[in-house]
Amino acid sequence: MTPSELTTLLTRVAAGTLAPADAERALLGTLRDAPFENLGFARVDHHRAFRQGFPEVILGLGKTPGQIATIAAGIVARGSTLLVTRASADAFDAVKRVVPDAQFHPDARIIAFKQQDVSPGKGQILVIAAGTSDLPVAEEACRTAELMGNDVERLYDVGVAGLHRLLGERHRLEQARVIIVVAGMEGALPSVVAGLVAVPVIAVPTSIGYGASFGGIAALLGMLTSCASGVSVVNIDNGFGAANIASLINHL
Amino acid sequence: MTPSELTTLLTRVAAGTLAPADAERALLGTLRDAPFENLGFARVDHHRAFRQGFPEVILGLGKTPGQIATIAAGIVARGSTLLVTRASADAFDAVKRVVPDAQFHPDARIIAFKQQDVSPGKGQILVIAAGTSDLPVAEEACRTAELMGNDVERLYDVGVAGLHRLLGERHRLEQARVIIVVAGMEGALPSVVAGLVAVPVIAVPTSIGYGASFGGIAALLGMLTSCASGVSVVNIDNGFGAANIASLINHL
Amino acid sequence: MTPSELTTLLTRVAAGTLAPADAERALLGTLRDAPFENLGFARVDHHRAFRQGFPEVILGLGKTPGQIATIAAGIVARGSTLLVTRASADAFDAVKRVVPDAQFHPDARIIAFKQQDVSPGKGQILVIAAGTSDLPVAEEACRTAELMGNDVERLYDVGVAGLHRLLGERHRLEQARVIIVVAGMEGALPSVVAGLVAVPVIAVPTSIGYGASFGGIAALLGMLTSCASGVSVVNIDNGFGAANIASLINHL
Amino acid sequence: MTPSELTTLLTRVAAGTLAPADAERALLGTLRDAPFENLGFARVDHHRAFRQGFPEVILGLGKTPGQIATIAAGIVARGSTLLVTRASADAFDAVKRVVPDAQFHPDARIIAFKQQDVSPGKGQILVIAAGTSDLPVAEEACRTAELMGNDVERLYDVGVAGLHRLLGERHRLEQARVIIVVAGMEGALPSVVAGLVAVPVIAVPTSIGYGASFGGIAALLGMLTSCASGVSVVNIDNGFGAANIASLINHL
Amino acid sequence: MTPSELTTLLTRVAAGTLAPADAERALLGTLRDAPFENLGFARVDHHRAFRQGFPEVILGLGKTPGQIATIAAGIVARGSTLLVTRASADAFDAVKRVVPDAQFHPDARIIAFKQQDVSPGKGQILVIAAGTSDLPVAEEACRTAELMGNDVERLYDVGVAGLHRLLGERHRLEQARVIIVVAGMEGALPSVVAGLVAVPVIAVPTSIGYGASFGGIAALLGMLTSCASGVSVVNIDNGFGAANIASLINHL
Amino acid sequence: MTPSELTTLLTRVAAGTLAPADAERALLGTLRDAPFENLGFARVDHHRAFRQGFPEVILGLGKTPGQIATIAAGIVARGSTLLVTRASADAFDAVKRVVPDAQFHPDARIIAFKQQDVSPGKGQILVIAAGTSDLPVAEEACRTAELMGNDVERLYDVGVAGLHRLLGERHRLEQARVIIVVAGMEGALPSVVAGLVAVPVIAVPTSIGYGASFGGIAALLGMLTSCASGVSVVNIDNGFGAANIASLINHL
Amino acid sequence: MTPSELTTLLTRVAAGTLAPADAERALLGTLRDAPFENLGFARVDHHRAFRQGFPEVILGLGKTPGQIATIAAGIVARGSTLLVTRASADAFDAVKRVVPDAQFHPDARIIAFKQQDVSPGKGQILVIAAGTSDLPVAEEACRTAELMGNDVERLYDVGVAGLHRLLGERHRLEQARVIIVVAGMEGALPSVVAGLVAVPVIAVPTSIGYGASFGGIAALLGMLTSCASGVSVVNIDNGFGAANIASLINHL
Amino acid sequence: MTPSELTTLLTRVAAGTLAPADAERALLGTLRDAPFENLGFARVDHHRAFRQGFPEVILGLGKTPGQIATIAAGIVARGSTLLVTRASADAFDAVKRVVPDAQFHPDARIIAFKQQDVSPGKGQILVIAAGTSDLPVAEEACRTAELMGNDVERLYDVGVAGLHRLLGERHRLEQARVIIVVAGMEGALPSVVAGLVAVPVIAVPTSIGYGASFGGIAALLGMLTSCASGVSVVNIDNGFGAANIASLINHL
Repeated sequence: MTPSELTTLLTRVAAGTLAPADAERALLGTLRDAPFENLGFARVDHHRAFRQGFPEVILGLGKTPGQIATIAAGIVARGSTLLVTRASADAFDAVKRVVPDAQFHPDARIIAFKQQDVSPGKGQILVIAAGTSDLPVAEEACRTAELMGNDVERLYDVGVAGLHRLLGERHRLEQARVIIVVAGMEGALPSVVAGLVAVPVIAVPTSIGYGASFGGIAALLGMLTSCASGVSVVNIDNGFGAANIASLINHL
Repeated sequence: MTPSELTTLLTRVAAGTLAPADAERALLGTLRDAPFENLGFARVDHHRAFRQGFPEVILGLGKTPGQIATIAAGIVARGSTLLVTRASADAFDAVKRVVPDAQFHPDARIIAFKQQDVSPGKGQILVIAAGTSDLPVAEEACRTAELMGNDVERLYDVGVAGLHRLLGERHRLEQARVIIVVAGMEGALPSVVAGLVAVPVIAVPTSIGYGASFGGIAALLGMLTSCASGVSVVNIDNGFGAANIASLINHL
Repeated sequence: MTPSELTTLLTRVAAGTLAPADAERALLGTLRDAPFENLGFARVDHHRAFRQGFPEVILGLGKTPGQIATIAAGIVARGSTLLVTRASADAFDAVKRVVPDAQFHPDARIIAFKQQDVSPGKGQILVIAAGTSDLPVAEEACRTAELMGNDVERLYDVGVAGLHRLLGERHRLEQARVIIVVAGMEGALPSVVAGLVAVPVIAVPTSIGYGASFGGIAALLGMLTSCASGVSVVNIDNGFGAANIASLINHL
Repeated sequence: MTPSELTTLLTRVAAGTLAPADAERALLGTLRDAPFENLGFARVDHHRAFRQGFPEVILGLGKTPGQIATIAAGIVARGSTLLVTRASADAFDAVKRVVPDAQFHPDARIIAFKQQDVSPGKGQILVIAAGTSDLPVAEEACRTAELMGNDVERLYDVGVAGLHRLLGERHRLEQARVIIVVAGMEGALPSVVAGLVAVPVIAVPTSIGYGASFGGIAALLGMLTSCASGVSVVNIDNGFGAANIASLINHL
Repeated sequence: MTPSELTTLLTRVAAGTLAPADAERALLGTLRDAPFENLGFARVDHHRAFRQGFPEVILGLGKTPGQIATIAAGIVARGSTLLVTRASADAFDAVKRVVPDAQFHPDARIIAFKQQDVSPGKGQILVIAAGTSDLPVAEEACRTAELMGNDVERLYDVGVAGLHRLLGERHRLEQARVIIVVAGMEGALPSVVAGLVAVPVIAVPTSIGYGASFGGIAALLGMLTSCASGVSVVNIDNGFGAANIASLINHL
Repeated sequence: MTPSELTTLLTRVAAGTLAPADAERALLGTLRDAPFENLGFARVDHHRAFRQGFPEVILGLGKTPGQIATIAAGIVARGSTLLVTRASADAFDAVKRVVPDAQFHPDARIIAFKQQDVSPGKGQILVIAAGTSDLPVAEEACRTAELMGNDVERLYDVGVAGLHRLLGERHRLEQARVIIVVAGMEGALPSVVAGLVAVPVIAVPTSIGYGASFGGIAALLGMLTSCASGVSVVNIDNGFGAANIASLINHL
Repeated sequence: MTPSELTTLLTRVAAGTLAPADAERALLGTLRDAPFENLGFARVDHHRAFRQGFPEVILGLGKTPGQIATIAAGIVARGSTLLVTRASADAFDAVKRVVPDAQFHPDARIIAFKQQDVSPGKGQILVIAAGTSDLPVAEEACRTAELMGNDVERLYDVGVAGLHRLLGERHRLEQARVIIVVAGMEGALPSVVAGLVAVPVIAVPTSIGYGASFGGIAALLGMLTSCASGVSVVNIDNGFGAANIASLINHL
Repeated sequence: MTPSELTTLLTRVAAGTLAPADAERALLGTLRDAPFENLGFARVDHHRAFRQGFPEVILGLGKTPGQIATIAAGIVARGSTLLVTRASADAFDAVKRVVPDAQFHPDARIIAFKQQDVSPGKGQILVIAAGTSDLPVAEEACRTAELMGNDVERLYDVGVAGLHRLLGERHRLEQARVIIVVAGMEGALPSVVAGLVAVPVIAVPTSIGYGASFGGIAALLGMLTSCASGVSVVNIDNGFGAANIASLINHL
């Protein structure tokens, strides 16, 4: 029941053209289900507001190209901006058949098709990556943040083993409103960065490394136990999630 | 907004004593929040139906005796049956001051005070324990199930290392409608029991053991990977949870 | 030795046509082995009763197509209903050669051939899946439960990140006698569902996710430590096991 | 060397009252160490800007009461606001001897003494706790955020097993600029909350639970693998860290 | 039903003093339960044969002194040898009240009272311990093996960091029929020993160590992955178990 | 230096044909290295005695076919029996080129070529496997034990979920001198077997299973924490190791 | 700003040819960035001194052949020695196109091209490997150490299961200045070696093994908990890292 | 048999006063046992050379005060320097009774009594600690290194969250010959330090931290996966081990 349907109903009761008992029955049904039945219909719009135009981001991982294409087509048909993360070339082939203008960013494993304007974020999001192997995750963060209307800066290959590389770019750290730090192996970079700035740092552990890095566990634990305050953490390799949070903060 | 309040509102609109716009505003508020605002008040009753008379079981673990006593007093004041699990003697001392008739079952680490009749379960719940060290968890299950209106049988110290002890009691297995199996160490007993019966088996790993039992992990993994079908598992040492599920099944 | 064989034997002893010593020898042998030698022969029938017609469900995982086909042929030859879980297309090719009428459900990774009528369950089993990637496991549960004689409902893609999707279908939750909840990632859905209903909830963690989901461990731990009572858990991706338990409960 | 000291130095060189060689020696020392030697002295001020007046928050865990008191005295002597987390009553006794006006919040395990005004945050920080056992961590977050100049709201005991409790307070969720969600056991609450709002959610797993909660691992993994976007995570029981990040965001 | 009871029954049927139908009923009951109902009574004797006189060894861990004393009294009353492992001084106090002649070996954490002669093992069991901190576990093995009738030799403090200590005693290794090797930390000793002898080596990891020894996990994994063949492993700190197996082997 | 070389040397010193100083130099060298330099040459023979004719069993895992073939040729050239475990078909192709009479047992993943007679073991080794997926490991154990001169019996597919299958073969358990039990999933079978016999049970966890079996960890932990005494454990999937120990025991 | 630039600046201020305000601006900039801006330019040279000619060793793992080739070309263009670890044949193909004289050592998975002389180390580095499967890691260590100017000795296949193999080469152990010990499975070899020598032992766990070796965890834990002092550990399979440290020590 | 005993023996054979057969028998015995029987007696001296005067360092952990005192008395009686690590005040009380001049360093948990001069190390060992809670481990390292004859410098409380603290002391890093870095929580400090110097860095993870630091695992993994080369790692909290290695290096 939409607000306008409610207006009509109550007007009819007041006009005597709808018996109170009948109105009551209709409203009781709505009460029992509401606001979810209605939100079901309003779901897309509502979430669109939540997510600045990304009501349904598709996590490509674990879905077939066909499944991805079908969902993508539905999103695009509603006029929404399309964003598929963890997308393979095969998935892109399938999506392109139904969304010919979709674009593939293989370095970020992202398929995107921008249809809606988004409100611009208030400041800059700086995405820092410790090493070159961390770039796919960093790029996923960058592309996502850009699609969400943010001004994004990249600062790559500034791992803690060569501090001067990071310290030499310190002025860039100070210009950011939110910083995303992507690092594998021991994941120490977010601690160092957070010690240098006064803005929120979102740490993304990556699965880069071998042996005792255990697919990102070493980096994850290191980031969670950071001795620097101001660091919060997302899942291993979750560049999208970090960008989403950074964008939320940047739009506050 | 209760159903009777709704009736009144609509009657007034129909009578012209309430403007449609005012009614609309009230209803819109209700629509936005409902059914939870109302359910907030109805929470106890609703859950009581869910849980067969146990709207608020108190997990004693991690609460101070004072906190437990305060919540207990509230439950008892509403006429509900009281059940505190993982209760210490100190907690009981505190509870007794506010609920003088409460009883303590130290073997089950349970404080209870029955105030309401519960519908009787349809069959028997058999609680099997592998070893004598598993008894606190087994007794927690037994006492809980009894309070929830079930006919409970006990079969203790029938671990798989001496199969004849279990097989000699096979007829008792066949009389149960639901079976709870409590075991630590390697946790093999549920597999054996489930291979002998055609009723649901709820497995409770216990933290009993040492070394590679890792506080119940060995038993937990053993039960989850049981080669026998018909076994589902609850948390380590969660005798209460097993009894709750068994009671739900026994009341179907 | 079957009951009728025993009758014959004792009648012959009484008639004097069998010497007590000879009868003793035969019975001693039986006693030593019984009831297992006999149950060995009766195994199929006995288990058939246990499992409502599924004496030997074949777990396809870790078996060659040839092994699967051989066992399948044996089961079908005895007139039993065939069920192979975790079946590949290759396995189906092999089975079809020996059981031409067998059917493959690739969405559920199941090969099935129904030969026997099963007693119908008493109520409805509702299978809920959190996301579309969880469907193979959910479908394994659905197909299994259907073959076991249950009325099965599906409710998919209602993960906790968009609660309204679940709450909008709340009336369907209330119609079920048993609920299976299939979820990967953080595995929070069973807790939410169990808080809304008063029937047993069987939680199935899936290996869906990445990073800190550790192949289903995050979901598994989440389900085991559920703050909602009424939840029991089966192994990661074990849709079959959940359905089997649900069917046992639904046939009580 | 502060900027004003530099001005003086160069003015004196220009005036001929300081020999270039002497100026050089002083500056070389500064250059070699700078900006760190100077920052060493300026550390407090610098960090004060970073942390909104909390240059040196003391983590009480693993320090003796004597160590805590000595550091606390130093901080207070410099006119800074004192904040000690994970503080015991013994630590408070020691601190009170040197900082008589310090206050102890045992529910938050915090010792505090406010000496400086902080800039007020722009919106409200809402701290949500799943259960009553999570309160020490939630209160650590609340007290910290308040000391850092934020308007803090509390919403406690709204775990996912009884969704209506949370949904009934939905309007409060919508008023927050940042939300901290504190939860133990399966840690599902942040996923549900993040699905309802469009602001950053900072999840704090707690060590509350038993068995398979493994001291907070279950909650931690659940939060990291949240299917809802917008959730970032801090260390187990790290209420301070969450509040610090929330305050950074709230002051942007 | 014992063999002699069966003889009587069949004789009576043959004699016409027992109707075949009555005999059938009795035998059917026996068939259904046998041999376990009878074995229930015969349990002690049967296991005594299995275990060479140790039908019921009491694991003291997780039992109260009272429970231990009650079980101990029962065992001694039947004329059996008493063995309690992981026994505390409190447990001994309780046992002594009911079994005044019981002896306590605090170095082995064992309470024992020998009442039965056991058959002597065929050779020597050598118990090797890597360090002095491993002695409680090594002594548990020694005392157990001695009570089980074995000739036991001790070789202590011969860890792999000082190989000459072990190699200097090489002739003693060659005299053993079975070797138990007790080691904590990296648990490398069994590999070295097994490379020097041609007899079975039973490895007992101990919980001795700190940090990455993780309560015995490092030693356990090291022993399981031993590059030397001939090594089998028991649970962490399970000196009793190792001795039991060694005794079984030594009595073959 | 062999014993006969020593005789010669000392005789020459006594005869005055070798100066004491020269003899001293030669002996000092021998003393410094001995007995290892000499054992280096004698290694094969010595180990052959240790291992009953298997001085160098080749673990195929992690070696290239070429490496395996080279080592195999060396072993065969010395007249020793060849045994390669974890061998692939490719490895066999390579071995066959240099050892044309070598045989491949793909069910056991073993390449073998018997050249030497071994002393027969004293009794029977019974190899029990829980399920058909465990057969490769069980067959590795059987083939190894047979090559080492043991009488081997097989008892397969007797998992604990259908106890009658095992109990019906109980007489076969009683005929064995050593029992190897191979099981994946929850690994409960060794506990049950060890409760039925009085001989050493060597448990082999297999990596069979999925989800919470974690590649054999569940079975491994279950076997290590077995409530039955008499069970020792080898590495996951280590059929060879179990057979080696069983053979050592059987030859005592 | 170099020291000589500073001298000039101050002289000019003293001479009145540079206004204090201008000097201040220049110095403030230097103060803010120094010494990192300058170190940025000096990065290569500086690190070259640090690493004895290996300013940028490329970890091939996780980089595409194209990425590796591009970085390699840059390094070679600067006249530096090229070292790529964890290199595949594909990577070598790509590198050879831009560095035609590069050499591939497939046994060590290393691509190298020596352009610079390095100072020779002071003693010998001995690389010991426990088994033939450990050779790729051992060879990575050897090749790296050789490129860094060290005299390297190899001692392979001397695992602890056959101690005489190691002890027979004891004199070689005594000639080394640093020892690298590479071992998988239980990783016991470093403990034994460190007990025999008085030089630093660097232990490299390898991922060789199966089952409970858990991809090198067993070896890693064993080495970390070594009862022998003098052992430090690097990451699993990190032959390069061990050689780098050994070379640093050997050049002290 | 010592070299001089050998000379005597051979001289007597040459003189005819010892029959070759008798000499042979004596030498054969020596050959069989040597060099270990003799080394058994020479153990202390031999190890003293290995360890620069610390033949028997006592790990106090897991030993009773009485055991520690007895071993300490033996060491001191032989004129050796005494070093007990992980010593409690109780242990010191016991040691003082037998070694009245022994000293206790509670900050380092060390009991020491220097009796022997040790050769001085060649350079300086710098011990860096990240936080004040790491001091017990850092002091254990310092005191050990000092007793072993090294010049030790301390640099404490320079964690990566405030980089300027470390960078401001950079000149001290450059003066060290070996650096020990002690850090808990995320353990990032060794990576940063190793990136600034060209000497070996020995990393000591500490158990300092909470939650996801898991008793030092986070720091341990971080150090093992350090992106900086030149870092090797010892066990969690093993300050002694780090100092021992550093001293070995410093004495090369």
